[in-house]
Amino acid sequence: MADTPSTGAQPRYELYYWPGLPGRGEFIRLILEEAGADYVDVARLPEAQGGGAQAVVRMLRQSPGPVAPLAPPILKVGEWVLSQTTLICSWLGERLGQVPEDELARLHARQLQLTVADLVMEAHDTHHPVAVQRYYEEQKPQALLRAESFREERMPKFVDYLERVLQGNPAAPGQHLIGTGFTYVELSVFHLLEGLAYAFPRAWQRLSPRWPGLQGLRQRVAERPRIAAYLRSERRQAFNLHDVFRHYPELDDPQ
Amino acid sequence: MADTPSTGAQPRYELYYWPGLPGRGEFIRLILEEAGADYVDVARLPEAQGGGAQAVVRMLRQSPGPVAPLAPPILKVGEWVLSQTTLICSWLGERLGQVPEDELARLHARQLQLTVADLVMEAHDTHHPVAVQRYYEEQKPQALLRAESFREERMPKFVDYLERVLQGNPAAPGQHLIGTGFTYVELSVFHLLEGLAYAFPRAWQRLSPRWPGLQGLRQRVAERPRIAAYLRSERRQAFNLHDVFRHYPELDDPQ
Repeated sequence: MADTPSTGAQPRYELYYWPGLPGRGEFIRLILEEAGADYVDVARLPEAQGGGAQAVVRMLRQSPGPVAPLAPPILKVGEWVLSQTTLICSWLGERLGQVPEDELARLHARQLQLTVADLVMEAHDTHHPVAVQRYYEEQKPQALLRAESFREERMPKFVDYLERVLQGNPAAPGQHLIGTGFTYVELSVFHLLEGLAYAFPRAWQRLSPRWPGLQGLRQRVAERPRIAAYLRSERRQAFNLHDVFRHYPELDDPQ
Repeated sequence: MADTPSTGAQPRYELYYWPGLPGRGEFIRLILEEAGADYVDVARLPEAQGGGAQAVVRMLRQSPGPVAPLAPPILKVGEWVLSQTTLICSWLGERLGQVPEDELARLHARQLQLTVADLVMEAHDTHHPVAVQRYYEEQKPQALLRAESFREERMPKFVDYLERVLQGNPAAPGQHLIGTGFTYVELSVFHLLEGLAYAFPRAWQRLSPRWPGLQGLRQRVAERPRIAAYLRSERRQAFNLHDVFRHYPELDDPQ
């Protein structure tokens, strides 16, 4: 039997996610990069080496585990197959020492990770408000309405909340979201803020002065040695119009 | 200091959720009911006893914990305050013995719980495709489109998947989703199916013959003694037009 997580040996992590976009896979990559973990981004390998989008499709069709995944990202570790971004992030973050052992701290990290994921979903729905399986261009009138609501109501509500949690953390006000140190949730908040600034640059410019604490956190995450090295590497893929976060100028604040 | 989860004493669980609808609170109520846990549904108490919607508002404004909740449902146990439905469900399910100790089984239960929550969110968005904070009546044209996509694409995709997981469970094919026995996820799947059948009765009639395993599971959950007693009690609130699942005939299959 192959290496499994229970053997205690350092496993090789296999990430399966659509190639060509950071997407939801990025929340997982950042944790693995921060840990210096031995991982392979399978679909970014050449097809001749078992990579490409086909690798994701194969994993969806022939998952070896007792509970098949519905969608990527998927993480394979030995014989274990896990899906759902927030589950993978929290499991890895706990396993790789990116959150204190304290149970309440771990629960609150999971809670914030889920809240980040909620806003990511809503950012996605700005360009897909009607039908996930159809093109943006087919649902543009509805997208204009949903994006306005996102910029005016949802994005400020959620990011104000994260700023409040950061400033209100009794253990390290303004410095960390949970406890006295860095946690994996900060990596996800970093990527969320990067995504919002990319997708809605005018709304970002208007709103971001409200979030001085998060701006500092975003900067500190970007400067963590392994994250900085990753961001400079070719492993980091640029945001683009296939991603969760998309920059369509007409969905941003009016000029 | 008040009872905390770490004392080992049986704690009193306080659920904070908007009164008058099952909502996302119901996924948590079902777990507490199945366990026969000592809990109070705070906002359903009379206002004179600290209940009503104001109890939820107070908890949102003056949460005692280091990480405040953004939205209900909220669970308070001693000094601990947790939010995010799937986090609360998984934490309670694990704590109350509704999932095996085995780590992979627990991870897969969390994964399925998250997948159920994704479909619940999409069911909600059928009546709120543009702006969560506005009335359905203000976004009805968009809702008609989103609901069609939901009935034709998303609901079959997700429920087919759950049926596949159930039938493909090597330990108890067609009987249980995970391992050889009942888990808290089955309670959430039960409520999801109840909600879909309520909100989209014509689509349900058309599609549900594809899901014989889940129909059986739904029936078996409803017959569990504590769940059956709960469903007959006044603690169980009926679905209605304030809920996540709403029955607007125009959003269902055409007659």
